[in-house]
Amino acid sequence: MKLSALIGERFKEWPSEAQLASHGLLIRGGYMRQVAGGIYTLLPPAKRVAAKIENIIRQEMDRIDGQEILMPVVLPRELWDESGRYESVGRELLRFRDRTGHDMLLAMTHEEAAVHLARTEAKSYLKYPFMIYQIQTKYRDEARSRGGLIRVREFTMKDAYSFHTSWEDLEKYYYRCHEAYERIYKRAGLGHVVSVKSDSGMMGGAIAHEFMFLCDDGEDTIAICPACGYRANMEVATGILDLVGDMGPEGLDVEEVATPGCKEIDSLCKFIGIPEKMLMKAVVFTKETTGTPVIVFVRGDLEVNEAKVRRLIGSDVSARVDEDGSDGICYGYIGPVGLDMDKFEVYFDESLRGMYNVVCGANKVDTHYKNVDLRQLPAEKFADVSKVTEQMVCPQCGKAHITLKNGIEVGNIFQLGDKYSKTMGMTYADKDGSLKTPIMGCYGIGVGRLLASVIEDSHDDYGPIWPISIAPWQVHINAIKRADDQVRQLADGLYEQLSDKGFEVLYDDRDLSAGVQFADADLLGTPIKVIVSPRNLKDGVVEIKTRDKSIAEKVPVENAASRVAEIAAALQKRIDDTL
Amino acid sequence: MKLSALIGERFKEWPSEAQLASHGLLIRGGYMRQVAGGIYTLLPPAKRVAAKIENIIRQEMDRIDGQEILMPVVLPRELWDESGRYESVGRELLRFRDRTGHDMLLAMTHEEAAVHLARTEAKSYLKYPFMIYQIQTKYRDEARSRGGLIRVREFTMKDAYSFHTSWEDLEKYYYRCHEAYERIYKRAGLGHVVSVKSDSGMMGGAIAHEFMFLCDDGEDTIAICPACGYRANMEVATGILDLVGDMGPEGLDVEEVATPGCKEIDSLCKFIGIPEKMLMKAVVFTKETTGTPVIVFVRGDLEVNEAKVRRLIGSDVSARVDEDGSDGICYGYIGPVGLDMDKFEVYFDESLRGMYNVVCGANKVDTHYKNVDLRQLPAEKFADVSKVTEQMVCPQCGKAHITLKNGIEVGNIFQLGDKYSKTMGMTYADKDGSLKTPIMGCYGIGVGRLLASVIEDSHDDYGPIWPISIAPWQVHINAIKRADDQVRQLADGLYEQLSDKGFEVLYDDRDLSAGVQFADADLLGTPIKVIVSPRNLKDGVVEIKTRDKSIAEKVPVENAASRVAEIAAALQKRIDDTL
Repeated sequence: MKLSALIGERFKEWPSEAQLASHGLLIRGGYMRQVAGGIYTLLPPAKRVAAKIENIIRQEMDRIDGQEILMPVVLPRELWDESGRYESVGRELLRFRDRTGHDMLLAMTHEEAAVHLARTEAKSYLKYPFMIYQIQTKYRDEARSRGGLIRVREFTMKDAYSFHTSWEDLEKYYYRCHEAYERIYKRAGLGHVVSVKSDSGMMGGAIAHEFMFLCDDGEDTIAICPACGYRANMEVATGILDLVGDMGPEGLDVEEVATPGCKEIDSLCKFIGIPEKMLMKAVVFTKETTGTPVIVFVRGDLEVNEAKVRRLIGSDVSARVDEDGSDGICYGYIGPVGLDMDKFEVYFDESLRGMYNVVCGANKVDTHYKNVDLRQLPAEKFADVSKVTEQMVCPQCGKAHITLKNGIEVGNIFQLGDKYSKTMGMTYADKDGSLKTPIMGCYGIGVGRLLASVIEDSHDDYGPIWPISIAPWQVHINAIKRADDQVRQLADGLYEQLSDKGFEVLYDDRDLSAGVQFADADLLGTPIKVIVSPRNLKDGVVEIKTRDKSIAEKVPVENAASRVAEIAAALQKRIDDTL
Repeated sequence: MKLSALIGERFKEWPSEAQLASHGLLIRGGYMRQVAGGIYTLLPPAKRVAAKIENIIRQEMDRIDGQEILMPVVLPRELWDESGRYESVGRELLRFRDRTGHDMLLAMTHEEAAVHLARTEAKSYLKYPFMIYQIQTKYRDEARSRGGLIRVREFTMKDAYSFHTSWEDLEKYYYRCHEAYERIYKRAGLGHVVSVKSDSGMMGGAIAHEFMFLCDDGEDTIAICPACGYRANMEVATGILDLVGDMGPEGLDVEEVATPGCKEIDSLCKFIGIPEKMLMKAVVFTKETTGTPVIVFVRGDLEVNEAKVRRLIGSDVSARVDEDGSDGICYGYIGPVGLDMDKFEVYFDESLRGMYNVVCGANKVDTHYKNVDLRQLPAEKFADVSKVTEQMVCPQCGKAHITLKNGIEVGNIFQLGDKYSKTMGMTYADKDGSLKTPIMGCYGIGVGRLLASVIEDSHDDYGPIWPISIAPWQVHINAIKRADDQVRQLADGLYEQLSDKGFEVLYDDRDLSAGVQFADADLLGTPIKVIVSPRNLKDGVVEIKTRDKSIAEKVPVENAASRVAEIAAALQKRIDDTL
């Protein structure tokens, strides 16, 4: 392809809306344009990368016996009523009516559609196990799309669904798929990916893993043990907390203290003269299923983990908003003494177990209690609802403190069990003729997010550094002063020669300065660059450089094409060697 | 792939809902399943065919310098407000609100999105001409989806948009694209495709063509001249009508006739004793833009063409429903005498020009006029609004009668002009620096409909006969009595050998009778079949047959693989030779 014809302007200015390197470079390099919040058009360079990523995914799915299908984007409500998710999933599920008044939705995931298909096609145990997958457009009505292709509303996703006759078989397949995912990231040239245990969330099911690309700008946080390799995302991570040491003398009476203006924790600690960890604070949620408040107490130096609360009470939760006290809660001064625990759903974090002489709210404005003894609370009121911090010790080996890292989720896999097959009445006839419910797994990976993550992983200030396996083009030819007959002839010849050899070549045929040409080449990030210029031609050479700067050499004109082929093979080998 | 693992049940029963061969065979063969009205899941065999069709389309689009991009399915209302189509397009455009209350839509075509992209990326004449295309999911809220994959709500479509600096340049490119389309159909093995002039409809613009696959079960009709090759779809086809011969004596007075019970044309003709063509009938439409009635008169033996009326009055129309006469129209007895032509929009078909002694309604129940002279009407009231019939003569050569054929539209191309670029304010700087509006073309082709059309074109009672270029698999191996060691070893070996040679092989490894295996093979329609059976092995041969029955031979075991390769090459050559 000739660069003069390529659609997609490139420019120097950093787009003001872009926080992430990938977001900014994708816009600057003419890879994508926003059409609406979180909705983008991909231009030719990005479409080419996406197609290559899709091919890698397809090959790896086929390798683990996946069968490609195509399910619809628009689904009828009835399917999601069967699973119960039409009601239970929030507003990120886009619902609408078609012209005949039927309730429809834009699918953001396809468990229901997969079961709808499989239940008529796999009625005998002989068909099992099997996996079906698709690479397809999804829509998720995000309230706050952000980060360019990292969190969008419309996206291309590979989603796969496997069906099994036993949990053991699911587990075996689940780890085959885990390995396929690792191969996908490696083949796409994405390093720094780790799998972590995760919450199955709206998917339901038991074991789930997220594949996290570790990067400072990632919006997810994961807990890692540097000693034993324990890894979990924040939603499920646990840690062993150092106990509060000296809590003072036993047997002190509860004492009411006037604390005017001490609604914040640090002002309260200063006022009373205690460390944060001797304080107990409350967070109030609204339980989505009932609308009622849930009060969660946690040690003053820790934070409440919403996902853990969600799992604990079996319902989605949201921050309580009507803090006018009409629900009988004295916001800002909540404490367990005198709180009606039959009226409210109340939990205490494990960090509070065994504590006494604690300071907490007195359910009265500007008032706290001192010396509260939590050892009197019933044991079943305690649960792990706090966020892991780096002061905690690994729950697996107990040998080192947890390290928190940021990351971007680039894939997830779930052991769903029978959640969907059971509610949707899917059965198969077993060997003995009895009807059984299949066990399912599901496996997702977003194409656009993976593309953006590769840029996060591999770029400099001037543009992406594409791994050769997914680069939009493998070779970039710069013809400097193409008006020069010799330059034009050689560059045109190389373009033809390399294209004939099967390389994807982007040929900068424009009558522009070397500076402008090179800036564009950097933004397009092609792995191998061939520079044809009058100065080099005088010496009978061309310059060959790699975008990653590992190679920069002058090569005799007649060897140029074969040297490019060598370098391309070496770059690909570097990727293959990681497998 | 082993057939025992393939997802998608096949069965004998014809599905009751299927009228078309393609619809029935796609269901019987395990190619697709309906999820909602006009919304299907494609199973592996159909997904494989679709992918091959997409690849052919992609190659042909790249061959005419197309650049592949990916635009969103979900678009914001604002874009369609700019073009005016948010208001003007009917309910087939699915509109909805996102969670933030923004008006959005599910795109059924992408002129607006293409201009939105191009207007920031092609600001200089140097970029022109260019063409961008995508292969992507579309949604069209059809009131009555039908015919399996022929008329669906959700579908995969290749849509392309070209941009030019002059009409001449557009026209040149338009015919390049026309040729690319012809190559696509040929490469997909679809015969009997002709291009016909068509109405540009909701697209706007001037010249447009539809590619029609001629087939008896097609729901579209096209007019063809067997003498000169004139072709047009019914919406734009014209014809030269034989004039009514003897209309009787001149100068007769208009005469009122009581015609009780003669609301239908044939009863009226019998009652008065005239042929249909001496009668004039009226059809009343509602003009969508204003809600007012439009009265169209046509000769009694002809029908009104709604598309022609639409173009004539510049608005969508629908059949008038409130026939209670409250609008001042005497339905069933409408005639021009005494009709207030200032109050109503009234047109007369060209077939009526020059007629006299005509019978028509008297705008009074059970009453008609005789001897009405239409020569008194102003010339501008006449227009071509009738449907072409086989009694008409070709308007191009005048040498033969029109033939009407049924067909399925498998593609369309439009010379849009500046309809979208102008309303959406797209400009480029010309050589002299002045701002100009680009001229556009657009080019669509539906993947699923093409797939179904190939089946319509190429099937027998037992299943599709896939052209080798798009067949889900090229080779089908039947192992008959695979329990036999020799059979198994040879079949397994051939499966491996042919797969290694790069063939896509479907291997029927099931312990089922030859009859069941062969029925499945027919439904899957693989071009080349290799049958390994104990009986054949005794003679040291396998049977090789083509699905199209052109070849059926016994081949020595050791030559089987090379013979398959030969046949595959010959089948492909047969397709290539049509190019």
